Amino acid sequence: MPHITALDTLDVRFPTSRELDGSDAMNPDPDYSAAYVVLRTDDPDGLAGHGFAFTIGRGNDVQRAAIQSLDHLVVGRSVAEITGALGDFARTLTDDSQLRWLGPEKGVVHMAAGAVINAAWDLAAKRAGKPVWQLVSEMPPEQIVDLIDFRYLTDALTRQEALDILRAAAPGRAERTEYLLTQGYPAYTTSPGWLGYSDDKLARLARQAVADGFGTIKIKVGRDVDEDVRRVQIARAAIGPDIGLAVDANQRWDVDAAVDWISRLAPADLAWVEEPTSPDDILGHAEIRRRVAPVPISTGEHGQNRILFKQLLQAGAVDLLQIDAARVGGVNENLAILLLAAKFGVPVVPHAGGVGLCELVQHLAMIDYVAVSGTMRDRAIEFVDHLHEHFRDPVRVRDGRYLPPRAPGFSAEMLPATLAAYSYPAGTAWHAGLTEDGTTNYPPAADLSTKEYEIS
Amino acid sequence: MPHITALDTLDVRFPTSRELDGSDAMNPDPDYSAAYVVLRTDDPDGLAGHGFAFTIGRGNDVQRAAIQSLDHLVVGRSVAEITGALGDFARTLTDDSQLRWLGPEKGVVHMAAGAVINAAWDLAAKRAGKPVWQLVSEMPPEQIVDLIDFRYLTDALTRQEALDILRAAAPGRAERTEYLLTQGYPAYTTSPGWLGYSDDKLARLARQAVADGFGTIKIKVGRDVDEDVRRVQIARAAIGPDIGLAVDANQRWDVDAAVDWISRLAPADLAWVEEPTSPDDILGHAEIRRRVAPVPISTGEHGQNRILFKQLLQAGAVDLLQIDAARVGGVNENLAILLLAAKFGVPVVPHAGGVGLCELVQHLAMIDYVAVSGTMRDRAIEFVDHLHEHFRDPVRVRDGRYLPPRAPGFSAEMLPATLAAYSYPAGTAWHAGLTEDGTTNYPPAADLSTKEYEIS
Repeated sequence: MPHITALDTLDVRFPTSRELDGSDAMNPDPDYSAAYVVLRTDDPDGLAGHGFAFTIGRGNDVQRAAIQSLDHLVVGRSVAEITGALGDFARTLTDDSQLRWLGPEKGVVHMAAGAVINAAWDLAAKRAGKPVWQLVSEMPPEQIVDLIDFRYLTDALTRQEALDILRAAAPGRAERTEYLLTQGYPAYTTSPGWLGYSDDKLARLARQAVADGFGTIKIKVGRDVDEDVRRVQIARAAIGPDIGLAVDANQRWDVDAAVDWISRLAPADLAWVEEPTSPDDILGHAEIRRRVAPVPISTGEHGQNRILFKQLLQAGAVDLLQIDAARVGGVNENLAILLLAAKFGVPVVPHAGGVGLCELVQHLAMIDYVAVSGTMRDRAIEFVDHLHEHFRDPVRVRDGRYLPPRAPGFSAEMLPATLAAYSYPAGTAWHAGLTEDGTTNYPPAADLSTKEYEIS
Repeated sequence: MPHITALDTLDVRFPTSRELDGSDAMNPDPDYSAAYVVLRTDDPDGLAGHGFAFTIGRGNDVQRAAIQSLDHLVVGRSVAEITGALGDFARTLTDDSQLRWLGPEKGVVHMAAGAVINAAWDLAAKRAGKPVWQLVSEMPPEQIVDLIDFRYLTDALTRQEALDILRAAAPGRAERTEYLLTQGYPAYTTSPGWLGYSDDKLARLARQAVADGFGTIKIKVGRDVDEDVRRVQIARAAIGPDIGLAVDANQRWDVDAAVDWISRLAPADLAWVEEPTSPDDILGHAEIRRRVAPVPISTGEHGQNRILFKQLLQAGAVDLLQIDAARVGGVNENLAILLLAAKFGVPVVPHAGGVGLCELVQHLAMIDYVAVSGTMRDRAIEFVDHLHEHFRDPVRVRDGRYLPPRAPGFSAEMLPATLAAYSYPAGTAWHAGLTEDGTTNYPPAADLSTKEYEIS
């Protein structure tokens, strides 16, 4: 009977700010980082569960400390007990009353719970010999609803309604699984559109994205409206009229500013406008959506928990919902959000990018397709071709589609060499940049160049 | 020209869970704690600014780490520069793009910013030789609006509207200050009503509260509806028909459960029902309020930021708004919330208790009276008689009213002996409880008894 013997954490950071990959109007210089957790066991085969919270640099140590603070809830417990009742396990992590005070259910403590819950899913899926998407997609509806904390949801979605949705989707599971395995799941790409890129680079990468088979691209906006009008025109000219063009404002606007700005950009025929304002502003999104209709509005990557998503749907605030695999309370809370979206008939278009977010979130989109909404219509998973080389089971995108992961687990595990080299501040990647006074600096470009957009 | 020479942090915890002081339906065993910060300067008079985030035990170390992570934004800066432009300073702390990702503007990182911002206010007020409430109440309206970050607020409150509110209140400031100094500000007390208390203790403390001059008492509910009905009846019988009786559910219910439960309690004539559901659930509160009208609904102590408060007001979700001095981004963000409440005509009834929350929040209520809403009608500051003896300038409550602080600063400074004895885990108060395996345990009761309810 194996047990959890340790909850180990690591501060892993990539100096992405050097190349302005990932730059947007709110986040000019992100260093993509992972507060990384490993649930170690005494299983003779070396079974371990990996997970992480995603951050953009400073504060990754705070996030790591928050993950570490959960170890009293995990270490010493039976692996079978945890993986056999992942709903109970998730509630244990989000319900510690003293830690809950620090959120509740939001921000650093909630992302910490999400990281550990996702690591437990990695453990459970490895133990079952299946990728997470398949593990969940094969569960009976009753088992799936047991994973979910319906507290604060029942005015919008009861356990019985969730069961009904899952049961309605059950008959087509086998056929959809087969389709998914052969055809993959649509991707869209953000790689062309970072704010730091030149017009030429934008146009070149946009054309390349179309050639690589993507049906939608996304570019960042929100720094200067005239510049944005020019850039969406460049992008539209590069991709032609039949490819989707989304824009992402990364929370830059107040309500009136959003309406004015979106009205200027709308002639480029926008697939959606992402994060026009604060991720907390449910009523603000609803007001913007009403005033710029029919331009589609989306948000969710910074959505703090299921209660926020519930209200976005109740208020009619969004046309698309953008889940993130590492912001909320793990697979469990994202299952609640997928079911809420299905109840309200709103497509889920997952947020990814960063480091490892594509690896995780693809599983959730595939669960949505096979077991929840039963459709890929109006849906696509974000794809950014950064940092996948650091993972043991990296995403595979071909002809603009994600191919389903086949390896057991949650695709969350980084390579040992990466964990060593990018550990902050002691890893060799950062050590190269240590200055005389002991502060860190960027290592030479040759050691750390991140790849430009290029489909593998 | 003095500068900030250090940002020191301390993990201070009080073992309050021993006595069930502070117990409620969501928080059965809180150890009231402060992630404490001192902004040290090289001022020859030893000038320093004190502040803290309030937590209830585990995770106070994570909160402390988050405060420490802000030191690069503070240490080395000129004291005059910071205290002369506290609006800019506050934005510096909430706008660090990498740290902001961990919220944004919520949870651990936002409470950390709030602690440091409040410490800067303590510094500014000591430097000015005035208590914070007086410092702000004497500022011209133009200077007050410069303190506020209007981002994400302008659909509900513009800078000009805020100016208009402050200017309308300006003529009566002197008269109201005089009234406040002589008459104080109404308090209400939660001391009788903790869930862990026996019926006899509840009745005895309720009668004592009335004898001590309080016009309203509050009791905790939410664990068992029949028990709650009995307890509100005991409380109502003890205080008679003319004293306000509020109940606090501490987020225990979903929408339908709240409506059912409140309907059972309503015959006791409730002054308000506090935190009926998730603090994030704006639309849920609005729905509950609509269905139990005219029973007044309140929330806010866990309100994450000004954007949430804006929506609570826009949605008509509350009859009363309950600010907390240490949950949001310090004095600055609470000024925004006071102005929003004034715009919507909703009374602010501050949350306090814990450790040090009464000391801080009294200043904000007094600013509201003198410079913003201009009234004490339907308002009172929560009072719990716990742990005030640990502060250099503790609150003074007489005949059910807070007397305005007179000492320069924000009343945030704990006594050096307290900081030493209650530092966790090395302080003598905790050392007494160290077990053989190095884990901590509660020290003997004789060393640490917290006072029962007793008006000083």
